[in-house]
This record gives sequence, structure tokens and C-alpha cells, in this order.
Amino acid sequence: MFYTDGKLQYPVRVDKPNAVFARALQQAIGGVEGEIRVAMQYMFQAFGARGPAKYRDMLLNTATEELGHIEMLATAVALNLETAPLSLQEEVAADPMGGAVLNGMDFRHLLSTGLAALPADANGVPFNASHVYASGNIAADMYANVTAEASGRVLAVRLYNMTDDPGMKDMLSFLIARDTMHQQQWLAAIEELGGSAALPIPDSFPQEKENGEFSYVYLGHMADGSIPEGRWSSGSTIDGRAEFTSEVSKPLGGKPDLAPPRPDSGAQSDQIAKG
Amino acid sequence: MFYTDGKLQYPVRVDKPNAVFARALQQAIGGVEGEIRVAMQYMFQAFGARGPAKYRDMLLNTATEELGHIEMLATAVALNLETAPLSLQEEVAADPMGGAVLNGMDFRHLLSTGLAALPADANGVPFNASHVYASGNIAADMYANVTAEASGRVLAVRLYNMTDDPGMKDMLSFLIARDTMHQQQWLAAIEELGGSAALPIPDSFPQEKENGEFSYVYLGHMADGSIPEGRWSSGSTIDGRAEFTSEVSKPLGGKPDLAPPRPDSGAQSDQIAKG
Amino acid sequence: MFYTDGKLQYPVRVDKPNAVFARALQQAIGGVEGEIRVAMQYMFQAFGARGPAKYRDMLLNTATEELGHIEMLATAVALNLETAPLSLQEEVAADPMGGAVLNGMDFRHLLSTGLAALPADANGVPFNASHVYASGNIAADMYANVTAEASGRVLAVRLYNMTDDPGMKDMLSFLIARDTMHQQQWLAAIEELGGSAALPIPDSFPQEKENGEFSYVYLGHMADGSIPEGRWSSGSTIDGRAEFTSEVSKPLGGKPDLAPPRPDSGAQSDQIAKG
Amino acid sequence: MFYTDGKLQYPVRVDKPNAVFARALQQAIGGVEGEIRVAMQYMFQAFGARGPAKYRDMLLNTATEELGHIEMLATAVALNLETAPLSLQEEVAADPMGGAVLNGMDFRHLLSTGLAALPADANGVPFNASHVYASGNIAADMYANVTAEASGRVLAVRLYNMTDDPGMKDMLSFLIARDTMHQQQWLAAIEELGGSAALPIPDSFPQEKENGEFSYVYLGHMADGSIPEGRWSSGSTIDGRAEFTSEVSKPLGGKPDLAPPRPDSGAQSDQIAKG
Amino acid sequence: MFYTDGKLQYPVRVDKPNAVFARALQQAIGGVEGEIRVAMQYMFQAFGARGPAKYRDMLLNTATEELGHIEMLATAVALNLETAPLSLQEEVAADPMGGAVLNGMDFRHLLSTGLAALPADANGVPFNASHVYASGNIAADMYANVTAEASGRVLAVRLYNMTDDPGMKDMLSFLIARDTMHQQQWLAAIEELGGSAALPIPDSFPQEKENGEFSYVYLGHMADGSIPEGRWSSGSTIDGRAEFTSEVSKPLGGKPDLAPPRPDSGAQSDQIAKG
Amino acid sequence: MFYTDGKLQYPVRVDKPNAVFARALQQAIGGVEGEIRVAMQYMFQAFGARGPAKYRDMLLNTATEELGHIEMLATAVALNLETAPLSLQEEVAADPMGGAVLNGMDFRHLLSTGLAALPADANGVPFNASHVYASGNIAADMYANVTAEASGRVLAVRLYNMTDDPGMKDMLSFLIARDTMHQQQWLAAIEELGGSAALPIPDSFPQEKENGEFSYVYLGHMADGSIPEGRWSSGSTIDGRAEFTSEVSKPLGGKPDLAPPRPDSGAQSDQIAKG
Repeated sequence: MFYTDGKLQYPVRVDKPNAVFARALQQAIGGVEGEIRVAMQYMFQAFGARGPAKYRDMLLNTATEELGHIEMLATAVALNLETAPLSLQEEVAADPMGGAVLNGMDFRHLLSTGLAALPADANGVPFNASHVYASGNIAADMYANVTAEASGRVLAVRLYNMTDDPGMKDMLSFLIARDTMHQQQWLAAIEELGGSAALPIPDSFPQEKENGEFSYVYLGHMADGSIPEGRWSSGSTIDGRAEFTSEVSKPLGGKPDLAPPRPDSGAQSDQIAKG
Repeated sequence: MFYTDGKLQYPVRVDKPNAVFARALQQAIGGVEGEIRVAMQYMFQAFGARGPAKYRDMLLNTATEELGHIEMLATAVALNLETAPLSLQEEVAADPMGGAVLNGMDFRHLLSTGLAALPADANGVPFNASHVYASGNIAADMYANVTAEASGRVLAVRLYNMTDDPGMKDMLSFLIARDTMHQQQWLAAIEELGGSAALPIPDSFPQEKENGEFSYVYLGHMADGSIPEGRWSSGSTIDGRAEFTSEVSKPLGGKPDLAPPRPDSGAQSDQIAKG
Repeated sequence: MFYTDGKLQYPVRVDKPNAVFARALQQAIGGVEGEIRVAMQYMFQAFGARGPAKYRDMLLNTATEELGHIEMLATAVALNLETAPLSLQEEVAADPMGGAVLNGMDFRHLLSTGLAALPADANGVPFNASHVYASGNIAADMYANVTAEASGRVLAVRLYNMTDDPGMKDMLSFLIARDTMHQQQWLAAIEELGGSAALPIPDSFPQEKENGEFSYVYLGHMADGSIPEGRWSSGSTIDGRAEFTSEVSKPLGGKPDLAPPRPDSGAQSDQIAKG
Repeated sequence: MFYTDGKLQYPVRVDKPNAVFARALQQAIGGVEGEIRVAMQYMFQAFGARGPAKYRDMLLNTATEELGHIEMLATAVALNLETAPLSLQEEVAADPMGGAVLNGMDFRHLLSTGLAALPADANGVPFNASHVYASGNIAADMYANVTAEASGRVLAVRLYNMTDDPGMKDMLSFLIARDTMHQQQWLAAIEELGGSAALPIPDSFPQEKENGEFSYVYLGHMADGSIPEGRWSSGSTIDGRAEFTSEVSKPLGGKPDLAPPRPDSGAQSDQIAKG
Repeated sequence: MFYTDGKLQYPVRVDKPNAVFARALQQAIGGVEGEIRVAMQYMFQAFGARGPAKYRDMLLNTATEELGHIEMLATAVALNLETAPLSLQEEVAADPMGGAVLNGMDFRHLLSTGLAALPADANGVPFNASHVYASGNIAADMYANVTAEASGRVLAVRLYNMTDDPGMKDMLSFLIARDTMHQQQWLAAIEELGGSAALPIPDSFPQEKENGEFSYVYLGHMADGSIPEGRWSSGSTIDGRAEFTSEVSKPLGGKPDLAPPRPDSGAQSDQIAKG
Repeated sequence: MFYTDGKLQYPVRVDKPNAVFARALQQAIGGVEGEIRVAMQYMFQAFGARGPAKYRDMLLNTATEELGHIEMLATAVALNLETAPLSLQEEVAADPMGGAVLNGMDFRHLLSTGLAALPADANGVPFNASHVYASGNIAADMYANVTAEASGRVLAVRLYNMTDDPGMKDMLSFLIARDTMHQQQWLAAIEELGGSAALPIPDSFPQEKENGEFSYVYLGHMADGSIPEGRWSSGSTIDGRAEFTSEVSKPLGGKPDLAPPRPDSGAQSDQIAKG
């Protein structure tokens, strides 16, 4: 169960409203790197958590923090929109150079929300939950969370660099710091879960059942038979159980051989006859 | 540029076709954990790779391998469908217990493809590229790739456990091994890129610009003021630059204060008058 | 900013786990009638609220309640999945009648989440935020909210009728009651906002600017010139400003007349020449 | 069955083509507030109508009108695009101030349609039918329809305010009037269906089965125990069956207690062992 | 502008309702091969038609017919659902073999529509307009329409073969016939537009501007240098302007060479330094 | 199985980077007319090919070519972005006329990829596989492929006309040529498959089972009883089996008659009582 106080986790101040930057901020709300996604991801990981209870609590706690980040960013969008042009004529009057602000806006900020945020990305594509990870495997989920916070911090840094509004820079310096912490947090959980000793994920599958011949070999698919070398092609593996090798990939199966189409399956007669 | 030989990277054999398992296999083709996603993810990371060329080659090489995994799985789906019932009556004749096979199938395997694979997941939801990560930050991308291979191996293990078809188990034991290697491979790249020394991601942003007060503190949002403790709440941080601390989160911003709606913005009169 | 206590708003008990019912419950989580949608809808309405502050508070407060409903339902899904078959063979062993449980399941409950809920509907279609209404017009939003709670209660009633599990019926009797209240709540807000006196929505647009000839007439598009009569075709209008009339619709515009394709616009030569 | 005469329901005239306004108009075609959505919504409500036949007729009749509105708006888009720049150079030649028109356009108007409308919204997001309501409950559907016409009229008003093209203002003054009527129409149907006496929706579920303790109480989720007061927290309920009360929400269920992961479910060993 | 008479273009009769077949029929309503798609496709092609007016009329006329096909199929779905089980217990009582009907159903037919059709496909994926073709090039559109009617007829044949309900077979024999005609119709239009003489599409682009060396050569990408031979690799081309040739594809461009990441672009330091 | 050499099929040169044109190019990568779509379409057609093996080879071969086209276009996008403004201030400094470049960009090129391509269209809508055709009927698929290459060439021509960059024009002149060839190639396959003699598609369904009365008649749905005449309304049919006729469409079925709602189906009481 959840509670709110209607206050912002950190102050949100916009010194000079910029409706174009409002569009950019949408990516941090509804984009694949954004806050709706992490809030829902940590929430669904918590709701389905099986095993030690501490991870459920930890996940739910941070999910709850992220809800407040959606709130901060939605507020920032609304404040950035407060001087947006509502009409083509207003735009031209204010800006004799021709629609620069209006053109760069998300039109749905004008048309669908009345100058407020949308649950969508910077291109106006609505958030969809297909990229919410909650696999039931705690280690896989932790890597998904590091990914979310790494791509989230990359995004926040780009937004920070994009604007020169002091208020927005201040808000983003807080969100960037939280992304730093959250990267650390999920990596700390990985360490607690055994780190590289708990690989490969899932570690509950007996590795002797996998085809071990292919478990630690970098396969080359370069047409000239070369191999892109690196830490991944020689030396000890990260899980410490083997040495990396590399070899050129060869097709071990022949050409697929499917049965001809069945008579009532909607194929062409020719396919059926000559199949 | 790409080439093919039309052969399978590894043999695909179905001993007893099972149209219901064909549906399950779709998740490994078009699901968020599936092969279309990784092929496209590694490809777009390679296509946009800036910086040392070796990563481009390495990514492109493995992307090319993954294309062959789509091919293997699509072949497996087609083979599993070869005895599928094409009609309600055929089904009932073969199975006096009432439609068990038909009911468990993806109907589009009958209706849309004529007994072949779809670029969709186990629920028939078409693949969408919103969850393809290619951020332009090599470290963020490597974590995204570990995530993909971790969730991919979890999925492959579940499919392995779901079936008792020896051919399918053999194919999956190969794919599971490749997922093992690919987890290792991306972790090896992370190590090569500096590992925890290259944190936080992106490491090109001067950390003094972030609000350092919040960079290494686990914030508690539990209503009773408790803190879910763990490796993330005390001890040295993973990047080695600080000690984790924890504290109860307090709202530092007040209630948001938006301007009232503007007269021509489509709000209700009451909102405008009393705003 | 938000807080949680990790407890359930109302007890969630499953007396006899049913993995098929788990699929049905997904509609109440991620469907268009579901709880993610209302939580996000009320949240974004609150975040963008301009005008009297009381509506922001009221919306945010109920959004926060709805987050707890997602939690309850996700818990119900996880509990219903606890005895689900993990394999085709397990299924057949337990159920000699042929895969009845497995066939009726959402396969992603097995493959993607490890027996836990997804942010998706009963067909496994991921939640998408395209149907989150937050228009910036408080009256339009209140009607959207009544719709959400009406369709939500219809869904909850259908789920109640679908199951005979006492624990699930108890949980649903609570959610149905909350939907009752929330219908009342949004209708109460409509009354407070002036009810039919505040029509048409938005009431801030001067009605003399609309083409008044068409504002209160039910137009007939039946090919035989008949008019489907009802409360909407005669008598006083709901806003009390006019009488309903009805008439057969006639095309007032001619056939559209577009310019021919421009030479470099990618049309066929014939279109350009004969346009 | 349907018929057409290929003529426009109301004249569509564009005095000064504006390719940027063409983008804005797309919201009224393919947006969540747009005409494809209402046409399909009323159509599917009609096609599935069970109960008194008059509602089917009434719905189908208005669905048919809405098809003509799609036609009007698509014509308006095509006319607004007739002077659009087809190239970057053409743009710069015509507009020394740098791409103002091209930048504000939907590029698919140039690239995908050859200067004509798309079934998409103002951001180019294709229409999707996930937000078409046809619940099988006539009262729920009527509220959904009021919502559609309220958000539709808000949108049309915003478009009206956005343009100063007399032709476009004339067309929109007609569409705004029709939205006025359609709001009235669905509210009239609600009145005919019993109005507040037919609450809660669905009214066919015996209210004694719901948990009556929670049916008319506004629950507070504010962290400080305050309650946002209003018409919804005291006084007679809208259905006249009770008095509104309010109280602070308390968690009635404890922390969820899920079983540990099963051995073959793809979790980490640690989760299984310590669960 | 459109009209209706509320009657069915062809009788829709279901002799023995089958809720599982109702799911299958959804593909013909909301699938990529379905009727919503063709109705919208022909409509948007008509609405944007530039050039000779006859094509606009012809397209609009058939679009209008297709609307009636949605109506027929939606009616068929509703009739097939009339004996569907509303509950798990009802199902088991009627069907001692365990949920065969319920498992094979689209649960949203129970939960979202109250036993009526959805604007979605056989997997419950909502129709989306991303696959509506209206390119502004009449020849490209005609091929898109042949495709739609070819895949539509394949689907209708599969549905015909799937059922043994005489009423459904009768309805489908009509729809199959219409698909036959519509294939002919669009091919007739292609013939009228010049057939192969109007190739390549678009024929308004001067072919000397294309890189003619690659216009009629089948390029081989087989790793072993073989060429899949056929009508496409030798003999006169279909447009009669050349002879088909074939050759092994060679990379004419080198490896891509992108600039290193810019300092403030959110990349890792290593990428920037070593780029 | 697939191979790569990391080189470009054809040189990609950008003489004057243009970040706005980078957005336009996205349509050719991730749009419905784009290269991801054809690569996946030909691939899935090949993977599911039943019948003569030559078509599988031919499809797979060209699918492999198309992968290289994605690579070329993604490279073109990255090169076009190399001088893009990373900030609002940088933009204004470089361009005193106000944000012309930034406004016309896809913001995700800045925020999500660090100046590289996305698997999305020109509006930033992610590629989705719902419009990948692989029907199991070779003739239907060939028409789908002609459509893809026709709409693809229309798009490439529009891009060619949009830019005056010599490098980009050169690259596009190659892609346009390949589209020419691929149109020819699929038409050649249609000819080889029997051309119009293999109609209607699928030709394996006995035509006497379709309702022959409606197989070759153009049905008029014009409200005034007129018929849009053309090659499709008289003369020999394309398959040579009949003469085209035309007639005004009449409703052969009455109004649909659905059963009233069932008591526990969530309808309103009124619907149930008066149904």
C-alpha cells in the first residue's frame, strides 16, 4: 500500500520556460530510459519476488522513490510549457523568425493535455510496458536495473548538457546523483548475490546439461574467417571456470527441410504439388 | 554487408511435433528476451559505434550469429507445427478429450502463417523495437547486453524444462551454452572497459556537477521510517569512491504550484476563474 | 513524493490456486479497464492540474490508492500461479485430460516472470499509455474517470462471477466496493463543478462561435431516411439551453477536389498527367 | 451495411494551406480524442449491442456520421499540405528563415502519403484500437462516449484557437457543434437509462455482495493523515443510497507471502535455497 | 459522407455457437489480413487520392463495402459466443473434460465485451493502423490492395476449413467470393494503369537517375558464391526494358568510419579518448 | 546461418551533414516502407517456406542483401548527425534564426542514441513486426513483396528529391535501383508461379465452394445507385474465367438479432430485462 504527501522530493524550478525542452524532458518520463519504466519495473519485480524477503522490500522502497521522480519531471514539463504559444498567430507575433518554438514542440502538449506532461517519450510515443523486466530471477533483474539506471543517467546527462536553465540543471543534478546511487545499489545487490560466482544466470540450471563445447568460445561470423579479438576471446572467463577460446563458426546443421504444405492449409497448388 | 549459406548453425530436430510448444518457442523469437531483439540490438549498437573500432566488429560479429538463432528457432516452430490440427473437427477426432492441442496453440500459426513461425512472442504480440538498446555509451550497452543474455538464458532454461522432446532439448542445450558465452563476453568487455572503475555510467560527466549529497545514499520511502538494509546501505561503494549511507527520504520541494489555465487553453471556466 | 509500507490494502487470499484465473486477473492489472491505467491516469491528471488545488490533492490521493490495487492484484496472480505446471509432462501427469490448465495459461507467466504477474492484459498485450486521459480540462477528465471506474467495476464483477474461490471472491468484493465509491466520487466532483450547467465541455469556449444550427440536432444517417428516436431526439436538452430536434443528414459539401500530384511527389505519371 | 455518396457532410475549405496545421489536425483523425476512435467505438458498441434494439440503431447511426468526419478531416489535411515544401532546398528558397515549415511538419506527410492524411495522431503514432470501448454494458459505454465527445470537443476548440484560417475555423465550428450535440446525446441516453438511479455500473450485480463497508467512503492516502475534502467526502451520495464518509486508509492485509521459487523455475539458486 | 441501413450485406447464421471459433474469427476483423485494415486502407487511399477522380470513387465505394464486412464478422463473433461459459465452474459442469472451451477462448470476450467482438486479432492484439497503406502512388496502392485481398482470402479459406458449421461456411463462402472479386478488381486497375508498362513504381522518376548498373541484376549473397536461379536471374525483365542478369554481390564500400563521440554526448571517456 | 564482412554494400558518403535529413532517413530504416521490414519479411517467408526449395533460397538470399541496406542507411543517419547541435544554446549560437535544425530533429537522436540511428520511423515510432507478411502462400507473399518494394521505391525517390547532398543522392540512386530490381524479381516469381493463371489466391481452394454469384461482380455502395465504372466493371476478368459485371449492392441479411445479455454477464439490468 502507498501514501503520498503531494510534495516534491526535490525542488523543481524553471527559470525560463522552454516548450521545446519540455518535449526533451518527456524522454525521461515515458521513454525506455525513463522513470515510468523504472517505477513499474522495480514494482513488478517486488510484487513477484520469491525468495529472501529483503529484496522485495528493497525493490519496493526504490520503486516508491521513482514514482516521485515521475512527479518531479511532470512538474518540470508543465512549468516549461507555461509560456508556450497556443496558436500559430501568437507564435508568429512573438517570434518573427517563424515558428521556431511551435515547430519544436510536442503538439500534444497543446492539443491533448493543455500544457502538461504526457506518459510518452520525446517523440510522443506512449509508454508501453513491453520493456519492463521482471523475470523472476533476481540476478537477471539486477542487471536489468543497472541497465535502466545506466541508460537513465546517460539520458539525464544529455538533458543537463542540452539546457542552460539553472533551475533545470539543479533538478537534473539531483536526478543524476540518484542514478549514480541506483547504479551502485543494484551492483551492490549483484555482489551480495555472489557476483561472478553466481554466473551463468540462472545458476540453478546444471551446467552439465548445456552443450559445454559452446559455452566459452567466441564464434566468428566474419566472412573472411577473421575473429574480432579482445578480452572475450582469450584468457580466463569471467566466472573463472574456463578459458575463453575462439573459432570460426561452421554450420553444423544442414539446410532446413520442412514438409510440403498440407492440402487444406491455404498454400498455392504449386507449392503443394511440387513441395 | 551480409552473407548466408542457408544452413543451420546447429541441427534442429523435433522428435514429436507439439504445436503447443511451438507457441512457447515464439517467446524466444519475438519476445523481449528473444533473438530478434538481440540481433537488432547488437546490430544497431555496431552501426552507431563511435570510438575504438574493435567494439563495432565484435558487436556486428555476434549480431550476425544471432540472426542464425532466429533461423534455428523459426525452423523449430515450423517443425513443431507439422501435425497441428487444421480444423476443429480434425482436432476432436484426434483428441477425444476436447481440443487440448488446438486450445493451446497460437491461432495465427494456423491462420496467418500456414504452420510457420511469426515475428511475435508467445502471446502473439508482434515484436516491437522499443526495447532495443543502443545508447551510444558502450558501457551502458554492455550492461543491456548482459541483461539480454541473462533473461534470454532464463527463458531458454524454462523452455528446456518445459519440453521432454530430445531434439528440442538438444537444440536448447546449444542455445543455453551460447547464452552462457554471451553473458561472459559482455562482462569481459565491461572488464576491458575498466569495470567498476568506469562508473558511474557515463563516466565522461564530471561528477562534481552532480548533487553529491545524494550520490551514495540509500533513501528510505517506507512509511514507518524503516530502511531495508543490505550491501547497498553501508560499506564501501562499488566504485570505491565513497561509503554507502542510508537515510529516510524527506520532501525537499513543496507542493507544485502551476499557473492557472490560460483563457484559450480548453480548460473549464471554473478552473480558469478559480485557479 | 510517495511512501509505502509493503503491506496490502486488503487481504489477498487464494484458497485453490488456479493458473487460468491468473490469466483472467491480468485484465484487471494491465487491461484498458485495469489498475495501472487508473493509477497513471489520476496521477497525470494531478501532475498537470491547473486551477483550484483541491482537485490535485483529491486526484493524487486516489491515484495513490490505486497503486495499492495493482499490488493486490499482482499478489493474487502470483498466488494463483503457485501450483502451475512448469512442463508439458508435468501437466499431463497431473491432468489426464490433456493440458487443460497449461493451455489456458498465459505462457509468459511460465516463461517470462517465473510465476508472477505481468504489466499486461489477459491476452498478454503489454499495457500502453495511449489510453491514459489527462486533458487539462477537469470536467472531461472526471467523465473519463467515471468511465474508467464503470468499465473497471464491470470487469471486476465478471471476474467475481468467473471464480468460485472464496478468497478471490472476498478480494473482488472489496475492489468492487472501491469501484462503487470511485464512480460516486467522480460524479460528485462533476456535480461540484456545476454538473450539466457546466456543459458543453469545455465551457470556456463561447458557444456563439460554434455553428449553432448543428448543436442540438440528432442527424440521421439511415439510408431509408428514418431516425432512431429517443430521449436524444426531442424534449429539452440536458444542458437546458435548447430543445432536441432531429433531421436527416444531407451532404452540405460537394465532392472533395484535391490538386493533382506534384511532379516530384512520387506519384505515377498517369496521376500527374491526368490529375 | 453501409453506403456513401462521396460528398462531404460539411464544406471543407482551406484559405491558406499550412502544412504545420496539417500535423495538428492529425490528432483529430487518429488521436485518442479523434474520429477514427469514435467511429470504431460506436460501431463496435452497435455490433455487440444486446438488449433493446433502439440503442443499436442509435449507435450505428452516429458511428456512420463519424465516418464522414474522418473524411472531412482527411480532406482538410490534404488541402493544408498542397503548398508544402518537398525538399530541403525548396524550403530554404521559400523561407529564408530556415526550415520553419518543414521542421514543424509530419515528415510522413511528405514521405509516406504524398501530401495526404495518415491514420495517426499529431506525433505520427498510428491509431491503435486498444482504447476503443465497447463493454457490453450500455451505461458504461455511454459514459465512455461522453468522455470521447468531451475530450474531442476540447481538442477541436484547441485546434480552432490554434488557427486563424477562416475556412478551417468554419469547419471546426461545425465539428465543435456536433461534439456539443453528441455530448448531449449520450447524456440523454444515460438519463433514459435511469441516470443516477442505475448506479453503480453495472447495476445488475447485487450490491449486497460487494463489501459494503468500503462502498461510500473516501479513503485518505496522505502521509500526514489529512483528507482532501469535497463533495465526495460528505453529504448524500450521488446514487442517493448512503452518506459519503471519509477515513484514513489503513493496510488490512499484511505483507504478501509468496512461496519460494520452485527448483525448475529459472530462479537463482540463492532465491531457491533461502526463500 | 456515409449512410447505413443496419442490415447485413449477407446473412450471418451460426448453427452451433463455438466460442473458440469466435476467437479465430477475430483475425478476420482486426488482424493484418482483416477487414478493419482494408476498410481503412481503401478509405485513406480515397481520401488522399490525387489525379483522375474515378479512382477515388472506386476506392471509396469498396471501402464502404468492407465496413459491412466488419459488421458481418462482428455479428458472427457475437453469435458464436452466445453459449460461452461465463465461469470456471460453469465450464467444468458442462464439460467434464476440463475447460476445453474456456481455455481456447479470448478471455476479453468474457471480460471486456460481454460476449461480443473486439477490434483485435485472434490473439487479442488490438488493431493498429501502422499497416494501412496509402502511399499517394496509385500503382503502389493497387499492389498493396492485391496483397490485402490475397492474404485476406487465404485467411478466409483457412477459417472455412477450420469450421464445419454450415452457417459459418455459408458466410465465409460469400466473403471468399468477394475476396476473389477484389483481387480481380485491383489487378484490373493495375492493367488499366498500364500494367508492367508503368513499372518501375513510381514511374515518374527518371530512370536515368537511378544507378542503372544495379537495376536488373539479381545479386547473390550466398557465402559459397552460388546464385539461386529462376525467372528472376535470366531472360527478359518484366518491364521489357532489359535482360535479367545475376552476379555475386561484392562490398563496394569499405568499413564505415564514424567520427569519435563528442565530449558532451554522454559516451564513456574511453570511447572519446580512443575514438 | 549468416556471415558479415563489416563493409558496406555501396559507399555511403555525406557531403554536408544534415540532422533534419537524418530524421527523414529513419523512415527508410524503421518505417512500414523500410528495410527492417523487408529484411524480416523475406527472412520469415524463407524460414517458413514449404514447397519447392528454390523459393526459400531466393528469399533468404535477398533478405540477406536487405540487412546490408539497413547497415547503409544507419551509417547515413550517423554521418548526417555528426554536426548536430547537442544543446539549445549551441543551436542558437550557430543559428541566429532560432532552432531550425534542432526543431526538425528526432530528439532521440540526441537523447537516446548519441547521434546514431534508431530502429524507428521518421516520427520516432519504433518498428513493429505487425506488418511483416509471411502467409505460407507463396503467391500472396510475392504480391506483398512487390508492395514492399513499390512503397520502398516511392519512399526512396521522395528522399532523393528531398536532399541535394551529392553523397546522399548517390547512395539513394543505388537503393532506388535495387528497388527496381526487386520489383522485377518478385513479379518474375509471380510469372513463374503461373501469373494470372494461378488466381485467385490461394488457388488450392476449390472455387466451386465459394459463392460464385459474387466472385466477379463489382458491387456498388453509392447512395444514389451509381457505379464507379472502369476496367473492373466490364470486360473479361483478369484470370480469364468470367466477365466482370456490376450491380448495386443490396442487403441480403436482415438486421442482426443477438440474444439479450445473460444475467451474470455484467450488463445493465435494463438491458437484461428489456432485451
